[in-house]
Amino acid sequence: VSTPWERYSHPELAAIWYTPEAVGAFVYQHRVLIQVALVQEWMNLIKKGTGKALQKVEVNLERILQIQKEGENHQTRAYLRMVQEKMRENGDEEFLSEIFRLMTSYDLWDTGLGLMLPESAKILIQDLEGVEQELERLAVEHRRTLMIGRSHGIHGRPITFGKKCLDWLEKISFAKNKLEEAEGKVKVGKLSGAMGIYSQNPRVEEWACAELGLTPASVSTQIIDRIIYADFFNAVTLVMCALEAIALNIREGQRTERREWEEPFDISGSNAMPHKRNPEKCERICGLARKVRADQAVLYENITTWEERSLEQSSPERLIFPEMLVLTGYCARLMKRVLRGLVIYPEQMRRNLDLTNGAIYAEDLKDALQQKGVPQIDAYDWAKEVSQRAYWGEGELVSNSLQHLKISEYLSKAELMEICNPESALRYIDQIYARFAL
Amino acid sequence: VSTPWERYSHPELAAIWYTPEAVGAFVYQHRVLIQVALVQEWMNLIKKGTGKALQKVEVNLERILQIQKEGENHQTRAYLRMVQEKMRENGDEEFLSEIFRLMTSYDLWDTGLGLMLPESAKILIQDLEGVEQELERLAVEHRRTLMIGRSHGIHGRPITFGKKCLDWLEKISFAKNKLEEAEGKVKVGKLSGAMGIYSQNPRVEEWACAELGLTPASVSTQIIDRIIYADFFNAVTLVMCALEAIALNIREGQRTERREWEEPFDISGSNAMPHKRNPEKCERICGLARKVRADQAVLYENITTWEERSLEQSSPERLIFPEMLVLTGYCARLMKRVLRGLVIYPEQMRRNLDLTNGAIYAEDLKDALQQKGVPQIDAYDWAKEVSQRAYWGEGELVSNSLQHLKISEYLSKAELMEICNPESALRYIDQIYARFAL
Amino acid sequence: VSTPWERYSHPELAAIWYTPEAVGAFVYQHRVLIQVALVQEWMNLIKKGTGKALQKVEVNLERILQIQKEGENHQTRAYLRMVQEKMRENGDEEFLSEIFRLMTSYDLWDTGLGLMLPESAKILIQDLEGVEQELERLAVEHRRTLMIGRSHGIHGRPITFGKKCLDWLEKISFAKNKLEEAEGKVKVGKLSGAMGIYSQNPRVEEWACAELGLTPASVSTQIIDRIIYADFFNAVTLVMCALEAIALNIREGQRTERREWEEPFDISGSNAMPHKRNPEKCERICGLARKVRADQAVLYENITTWEERSLEQSSPERLIFPEMLVLTGYCARLMKRVLRGLVIYPEQMRRNLDLTNGAIYAEDLKDALQQKGVPQIDAYDWAKEVSQRAYWGEGELVSNSLQHLKISEYLSKAELMEICNPESALRYIDQIYARFAL
Amino acid sequence: VSTPWERYSHPELAAIWYTPEAVGAFVYQHRVLIQVALVQEWMNLIKKGTGKALQKVEVNLERILQIQKEGENHQTRAYLRMVQEKMRENGDEEFLSEIFRLMTSYDLWDTGLGLMLPESAKILIQDLEGVEQELERLAVEHRRTLMIGRSHGIHGRPITFGKKCLDWLEKISFAKNKLEEAEGKVKVGKLSGAMGIYSQNPRVEEWACAELGLTPASVSTQIIDRIIYADFFNAVTLVMCALEAIALNIREGQRTERREWEEPFDISGSNAMPHKRNPEKCERICGLARKVRADQAVLYENITTWEERSLEQSSPERLIFPEMLVLTGYCARLMKRVLRGLVIYPEQMRRNLDLTNGAIYAEDLKDALQQKGVPQIDAYDWAKEVSQRAYWGEGELVSNSLQHLKISEYLSKAELMEICNPESALRYIDQIYARFAL
Repeated sequence: VSTPWERYSHPELAAIWYTPEAVGAFVYQHRVLIQVALVQEWMNLIKKGTGKALQKVEVNLERILQIQKEGENHQTRAYLRMVQEKMRENGDEEFLSEIFRLMTSYDLWDTGLGLMLPESAKILIQDLEGVEQELERLAVEHRRTLMIGRSHGIHGRPITFGKKCLDWLEKISFAKNKLEEAEGKVKVGKLSGAMGIYSQNPRVEEWACAELGLTPASVSTQIIDRIIYADFFNAVTLVMCALEAIALNIREGQRTERREWEEPFDISGSNAMPHKRNPEKCERICGLARKVRADQAVLYENITTWEERSLEQSSPERLIFPEMLVLTGYCARLMKRVLRGLVIYPEQMRRNLDLTNGAIYAEDLKDALQQKGVPQIDAYDWAKEVSQRAYWGEGELVSNSLQHLKISEYLSKAELMEICNPESALRYIDQIYARFAL
Repeated sequence: VSTPWERYSHPELAAIWYTPEAVGAFVYQHRVLIQVALVQEWMNLIKKGTGKALQKVEVNLERILQIQKEGENHQTRAYLRMVQEKMRENGDEEFLSEIFRLMTSYDLWDTGLGLMLPESAKILIQDLEGVEQELERLAVEHRRTLMIGRSHGIHGRPITFGKKCLDWLEKISFAKNKLEEAEGKVKVGKLSGAMGIYSQNPRVEEWACAELGLTPASVSTQIIDRIIYADFFNAVTLVMCALEAIALNIREGQRTERREWEEPFDISGSNAMPHKRNPEKCERICGLARKVRADQAVLYENITTWEERSLEQSSPERLIFPEMLVLTGYCARLMKRVLRGLVIYPEQMRRNLDLTNGAIYAEDLKDALQQKGVPQIDAYDWAKEVSQRAYWGEGELVSNSLQHLKISEYLSKAELMEICNPESALRYIDQIYARFAL
Repeated sequence: VSTPWERYSHPELAAIWYTPEAVGAFVYQHRVLIQVALVQEWMNLIKKGTGKALQKVEVNLERILQIQKEGENHQTRAYLRMVQEKMRENGDEEFLSEIFRLMTSYDLWDTGLGLMLPESAKILIQDLEGVEQELERLAVEHRRTLMIGRSHGIHGRPITFGKKCLDWLEKISFAKNKLEEAEGKVKVGKLSGAMGIYSQNPRVEEWACAELGLTPASVSTQIIDRIIYADFFNAVTLVMCALEAIALNIREGQRTERREWEEPFDISGSNAMPHKRNPEKCERICGLARKVRADQAVLYENITTWEERSLEQSSPERLIFPEMLVLTGYCARLMKRVLRGLVIYPEQMRRNLDLTNGAIYAEDLKDALQQKGVPQIDAYDWAKEVSQRAYWGEGELVSNSLQHLKISEYLSKAELMEICNPESALRYIDQIYARFAL
Repeated sequence: VSTPWERYSHPELAAIWYTPEAVGAFVYQHRVLIQVALVQEWMNLIKKGTGKALQKVEVNLERILQIQKEGENHQTRAYLRMVQEKMRENGDEEFLSEIFRLMTSYDLWDTGLGLMLPESAKILIQDLEGVEQELERLAVEHRRTLMIGRSHGIHGRPITFGKKCLDWLEKISFAKNKLEEAEGKVKVGKLSGAMGIYSQNPRVEEWACAELGLTPASVSTQIIDRIIYADFFNAVTLVMCALEAIALNIREGQRTERREWEEPFDISGSNAMPHKRNPEKCERICGLARKVRADQAVLYENITTWEERSLEQSSPERLIFPEMLVLTGYCARLMKRVLRGLVIYPEQMRRNLDLTNGAIYAEDLKDALQQKGVPQIDAYDWAKEVSQRAYWGEGELVSNSLQHLKISEYLSKAELMEICNPESALRYIDQIYARFAL
């Protein structure tokens, strides 16, 4: 069996969530099992030596899978059986009764997640820092590269490409920051046992968690409240949405008519049409974002569980936690590659600025009129008349204004020429950058 | 790399969507490529012999993957390169210029889906028929097995377990019927080439589709309109939701206090608590239903594409089509197994009927009063008084009614005794079953 | 209280779902109550004259709301109380005990939906027919209006604007057709009473439904299976998605750089920038589509209910059924208006065709080479070389090809000139239109 | 027009989002408009006196709506026209050219949201504190009220009802805490004008925001990045999900067979079945949670916008922001009422503890065996044998164990009797409560 999403992989994240060595997160759960034994030992709850006996055991995934095939479908029990076999082999029979004392599967599972999720977050954060670096570089390089700003797809007024990169940077930083916060909230473990009523002394939980670098959940049912995972993956979803937003805008900028930039091109494009260079990396990011957003809906549903626990949360988590992390990590890395190789066409940006015969300075015209004392509504209407004609190819803003009975009363040709200046976009550019210490 | 969802597999569906031989659906697309060549040949558009040359080629997935690793990331081009290598080996160089003439990747891809989706639907329908058979069997066996009906989780009035099975049956049949309809609508192919403007004669499309058992899409852009896939997977989602609804209700019936049935038990339950038998199969169905429902949201988004096509639909489809089908197929099969092995406890159903001291006959009491001419509102209020007391353990319905000043004016003890009869549930049971020809 | 969505209204649909006279669908439920009484009378189950007494009662919403304010929060009971008050006023006390016999609230509610949903579907279908007419008109008018086809936002090969309108038409027609089918499946009523076990003779259901133009649900719990509503609203969602897809593409075509059409402009655009004409109607359609798509997710969840019924489906249905219908109807009507007033700029389409120096004929060049016997892979690579240079402004396709050592061996200048012909888009245009009988 | 959701209202939140005085948030936007003028005045950018002139104007919603009906469909422009009319009436013509200088509609709109959302959050937080208080009260009262813990719906081991209340409390507190954090992140304003390129000095933004108690967005396009709203409403969704989780569990506890508590009953229940008391408040919470969860999906989509802004985010926000807040607030308040009036049945809890003949002590039995040196796997298997028989009514745990060849070797009757003690749930209860300082 081979799955299509091997196309969208991220080795470091896959190593936590998919590789044979880590499947089912046994490696992380094994760390938990050992740590619990060490604490229990230290508290004289179990025989001295158990922890050491467990440390001698290495997780053998193949054997676990075989045990499952032999009919033990409970994953944790298959793992424990493997552990016990190995202990026997090691001559540690005397500790067989000591392990997994007063624990339940999710003591391992959820405490394991307390290790896996923060580790994943850290990797993802690193990828995002890579994205941020590229965006900072672009922002600095193109601080004064003029281009048209657009709203509703229609030319608005001039901005700079660097300023746009700051918008993107801020979006990524917000999401990264959320992930950092959320990481703190999932560094949580639980050893409250079946029903969460503490079959064993809560001290075991406190000390084992401390050793593992985790906070014990203030309270837990048989499982940790899924609300903390919904919140964590909200942050992951925000990351994905931030990438999606940038990707969509890169795609729009690469449209043939606009062609202000191009994502790096390294594969053949269309199979039918040899001339094509498609923004297919950014399209892929947009596509995968749909999947990640949809997954998040499930995690909200998972917050509700029957009494001390029911199992509906389990199967979707097995699919969704890895999927959301790997796909988002994949896209972050892909975005970094896209930004690093982004080919920028400043002349084309400049050319596009001039497409509307000066209509894009209508706001400045309106304000100039207001400054001369024209009421806001009149100023708007007059500027609308002359600029809409310019937009549709009838004359251009300055000449139309000079021919306009009212406007020409207030503004001279020289004043009008000054208004039609894309460098207005630079007026406050330094203050804008100052907020980013750039 | 090993994925968690190997836990939820369905061999026949996986064979279409995941097995190495079929990855990327090359096998189906190869059938399309051959068929197109045969038609083009027959129409004298390409050299005679091309079709035969192609038929000699077998899809070699390993080679395709290797070509991709060598740098050709375009999947269809990697496949074509494999085909051409093989043709060269076969001494069929002269046909190299003849294949894939005036086609675009999605001519293969979407026409391939026209083969894969109906084939998948058929398998799924078979599984559903298995579910239907079990439900029919249960319905027939338990036609007269009395149990309490519940609304809002509160005892309502008596029904039979067989009647409940008819509700479930109808739900499955509705969904199955939708799937049959939807199957018809995705038996569609397209060979309209790049931009959907027919680089080649539409006759090629018509005839090749006919040979493949498909209808040509009335019109297509570079791809088939994703609306037909959204609709097809709506049917799949309905199937999954129907299974979810039954699964939830089986879980509720297995609650310790109620214990009217149990799903078959073949794995060890809780790891901590040895006494437990959990309805974990049905819980798994409920969990996976969340995933499938979430996926469907993406397919609605995919209906929108930029102009003649953009690529966002591609990556999520690669993940979602297989996932929705395999998970739903897995759950259908699991449900069949659950129903086949469902352990029914009719005595417990009977015991539960008596938990409320006759309160559950309040509606019949009310109606008996109305029959005697008591206005609806008064009848309701009196019946409420005596039945709510019974429900809360103060007396039981008959004695409370006899002590009630108004009710006792209208109804005798004998009449009251007759009202308190669970067999009222059987009054129209034959007419109900008659609608199912059971 | 005034709600924001009065902005997005549809008078005929609002009249079913929102106007004071219809709130809670009392008018439709009253029709059901009367019809049931008539049938019960005819079957000698209740006193003759009850039906007539009910027919004398008109739904008085104000009184119902007042009764609710007086403390009767059960909506159906408030309605029944209003009915009974009125019957008393009319001197029809003798029938007070006869009405609502052996019925439950959802006998009224769901049978009422069986009237409301098909009526809504019909209105929506009419609106869609309006959209279809506009699209047909555009398709006919612009059958031969050449424009560039695009994939991934990049110029592909020429098509015609009329052909694009056929794509849109087909999308709308598919959705409309689904709605027609779904309408048939919700023309369903149920009178199976509490727990769906038929407190009264199933004949009452059969005959009353027949009189109301409905099919009785084969089987029902206390409510009709929500799967039929999920399916119905899948069709509504598909309609909304079809509108969204068209709206997005209209917006893209109105971008300043492309400007191939404009939606009709009747409001002031930007408040700051007087020159702007924004495609804000189509943007609104895209926005509202997000809402409708999201709502559908809830209807899938609603398929699961506890036993014979639980109430979670009720509150979201009260919000979602009206919302999905009114928003979709509003958007259909808005789309019709947009299409009717769409301003088309064929010269701009033509101008855009020429933006890439002939690169868009690369596929035809490739095929011409294949026709001369060049293997597909070589033909592709050569065409790629010359066309990508043209796309990026180095020469144009014909001259580049003539300078290309290999291509020039196979193709003459005259042949190349013929390849670079946008009228290739017209080659099979008549066959395409023939499928639509246009 | 009357909408169904007047059923689910919250006066204080509705006053911000729906009441006529506040529709379209004009009141908040007016505060922004005034504040901007005051700052501009102070910076000598406009005539002194403008701010005072604006302060004399009160928002007149009726007039705005009338202006809209007269054909001005741009909401902000209708509002500005109303303002200007009033200024004229007040004899403040000289300031007409001074207002709304270099601003764009979303300078008002989004800065207004910066006031409305935190204000809404505060109200919601107050409601949640009410919920917390009830949960604390219950937790304290029922610290030692024994009941059975359940997993998968099956009896697990004893807990206390107070402990369960702590689980619920923690869930609400987590969500409330998220809302507090998120509130801080939406206290943001923007006055960066059209395209976000600062038509006017960024100082105006800084100072006006400071006066309004807001932080200026570090950078903005024409609108504030929607990512902050998606994040804010994630917190709202978590609140709703927390309420849903509690509501579902209250419903389960009220099931006839279990009846451990009942939500307060103040309306008539079933219309057909007079004896019923349904947990319909909690069902309503569960229903509305589906709607709120679905809405959140849209806000993730809204993060992506075309370039400096497009309008798709606008129409869904108008519907969703109010809806999510009002429905969640309504449910929080309803939950408080439910908890305050919750009728608890401790004797029934106790009765349910004894339903399984001691099977629920199987874990303690297993551990007792392990303490005696029995390997974990054997201990598990033996305990399973005797406990599963007890669960199914064959004997009870102690006698079965005494008859068990192996167990009886290790444990005496006295030891077994001690194991079967529900008060094991109290062993660490004080430590658990200590974490809550209760």
